[in-house]
Amino acid sequence: MVQLALSRRLRRTAFSDGVEAAGVKAYTVYNHMLLPTVFRSVEEDYRHLKEAVQIWDVAVERQVELRGPDAGRLLQMLTPRDLRGMLPGQCYYVPIVDETGGMLNDPVAVKLSEDRYWISIADSDLLYWVKGIAYGYRLDVLVDEPDISPLAVQGPKADDLMASVFGDGVRDIRFFRFGVYQFQGRDLVIARSGYSKQGGFEIYVEGSDIGMPLWNALFEAGKPMDVHAGCPNLIERIEGGLLSYGNDMTDDNTPHECGLGRFCNTQTAIGCIGRDALLRVAKEGPVQQVRAISIAGDKVPSCDRWWPLVAGGRKVGRVSSAAWSPDFNTNVAIGMVRMTHWDDGTDITVEAPDGLRPATVHETFWL
Amino acid sequence: MVQLALSRRLRRTAFSDGVEAAGVKAYTVYNHMLLPTVFRSVEEDYRHLKEAVQIWDVAVERQVELRGPDAGRLLQMLTPRDLRGMLPGQCYYVPIVDETGGMLNDPVAVKLSEDRYWISIADSDLLYWVKGIAYGYRLDVLVDEPDISPLAVQGPKADDLMASVFGDGVRDIRFFRFGVYQFQGRDLVIARSGYSKQGGFEIYVEGSDIGMPLWNALFEAGKPMDVHAGCPNLIERIEGGLLSYGNDMTDDNTPHECGLGRFCNTQTAIGCIGRDALLRVAKEGPVQQVRAISIAGDKVPSCDRWWPLVAGGRKVGRVSSAAWSPDFNTNVAIGMVRMTHWDDGTDITVEAPDGLRPATVHETFWL
Repeated sequence: MVQLALSRRLRRTAFSDGVEAAGVKAYTVYNHMLLPTVFRSVEEDYRHLKEAVQIWDVAVERQVELRGPDAGRLLQMLTPRDLRGMLPGQCYYVPIVDETGGMLNDPVAVKLSEDRYWISIADSDLLYWVKGIAYGYRLDVLVDEPDISPLAVQGPKADDLMASVFGDGVRDIRFFRFGVYQFQGRDLVIARSGYSKQGGFEIYVEGSDIGMPLWNALFEAGKPMDVHAGCPNLIERIEGGLLSYGNDMTDDNTPHECGLGRFCNTQTAIGCIGRDALLRVAKEGPVQQVRAISIAGDKVPSCDRWWPLVAGGRKVGRVSSAAWSPDFNTNVAIGMVRMTHWDDGTDITVEAPDGLRPATVHETFWL
Repeated sequence: MVQLALSRRLRRTAFSDGVEAAGVKAYTVYNHMLLPTVFRSVEEDYRHLKEAVQIWDVAVERQVELRGPDAGRLLQMLTPRDLRGMLPGQCYYVPIVDETGGMLNDPVAVKLSEDRYWISIADSDLLYWVKGIAYGYRLDVLVDEPDISPLAVQGPKADDLMASVFGDGVRDIRFFRFGVYQFQGRDLVIARSGYSKQGGFEIYVEGSDIGMPLWNALFEAGKPMDVHAGCPNLIERIEGGLLSYGNDMTDDNTPHECGLGRFCNTQTAIGCIGRDALLRVAKEGPVQQVRAISIAGDKVPSCDRWWPLVAGGRKVGRVSSAAWSPDFNTNVAIGMVRMTHWDDGTDITVEAPDGLRPATVHETFWL
């Protein structure tokens, strides 16, 4: 790892004071904001995430708010997922594509009411695209980034911790649904969602001023559950096949290449900007696709650039994320693989920075 | 400083191998890419920049290319600067604003021909805004991010170094003009520009494959001139009043607040998206504006968040960038100050993290 030079441009969050007090060891930068990546060690954080409960500062999931009579129409323009069945109280994972079908972001949309949505974004300034489209089409909608800082509670004991702060009602929130709960007299949207496979919630903390009071209340209540500060865990998210925009996909990729075809209702998503391009892709299918890949040998080095995948002397793809998995006793990885080599069990070679390693393509992820 | 966790999402540049070999000590992240911030020390780099010549990896200045019959019309939609007088071969600093007059970026536009421009961007995904507008207005223009990596040569000996690699012709390039020069049989756009006040050039390296060959050629040729790897220098850029998007201004600010009113020809910039909002600002003037601020006392800590400026018990602004200046023997800073306190010589107080310090507002920067 290298040093990160801090400046105001790399924005602190509503929880940064708590993150620092909890002993954050490293950050990444995400949406021009600080995102913790390690507290104790990636392996210790991983073990603890799977056994207890963690509080994650994911304020970097900035919200793009759409408000006004054209909010629903605008959201449908942005995504090939058919939104007609989406109800207030639901969260939808929505691939966002440009006019060529290239992925601009892969956020979760939150429907607050018929004319109000939040788009909880991955690492790109989606606000600029949405504002540009809204302006170009003269839509009757307000688009901005409100003062909302998501805080995630993840892990098998997440329900117990959340119930102790917000009441037992939170236990009834269904997956990708949300409810509104009170903290210090303020209404907060709480969804059952999060960037792990261990279960949990995301609290949309509206108003930075209650960020640290809520952080502290959760840590206080979580003491009996061995609560710790955590963050999206590299190992756990690869095991679970949770993609990372900018790592595992870019605007060069279609949703179908990213294995997100099930979120594309290209025939019926009328108004979607990328519809024409994606109808073509949906018909012919992608020629490369995201796959789980196991890599032989000892723990791989940090994957800070694409590692080529080769077979028969030709490039057949690339690895974009990789880590040693203690639970599966292998290096787990996410890569993009050409159709000639994407079948389950195909043996290929990865050009890792420390040399060639045997690798195997898998149809499904580990968890 | 803290640790930076690397991943593919924080893109390496065409020169990262050279930057690492030169002993980079810290990075920041800029346009989802690694930007060096220190080699020897900020103070040593500063002294050397003012006395010799440095090679800077500024590949983070990504290019948004506009190509097609509507390229010029689109660029004028983006900025309040009147572009009618802009000729091929010229570079223009162009504030980019949204429909409210809020700054989205402060890039340099490069006019290659009547129907082709590059926009060399600061830290925001301007590509998304430009694509959204082009799509919404159905303009006849291609908008994308080509494989172009700017490399800056800055310092008083920049002319000598550049002449030794590209020939004496480069000495004749005028400020904010460019010419096309050859390197290894490839045409490269070279402009007299850069993010320092020490003079120099920016080479628009088209094609990542020639990045390291050019880097190495410049270092080889620069040996007699004591060439070193460098980077935008915090102290020098504050002394010179070079603003940093995300630090000294955000989308909350108008160009007039940023002291960029001289780049706004709001009356005649017909087609500019923010024109209506800015006509109002141009008429009434801003109520706060960027100012040079000297801060008393020893070397200030790292300015990683806005520091409030107060006077008479009220908040009158904020400091966004600050550093100790060896040459001016004071802490130099950039801040936004309300009109009640922006006159030259006004004494105010800054709430620095290590306590209250006296500060003075200045009409002009140090260099």
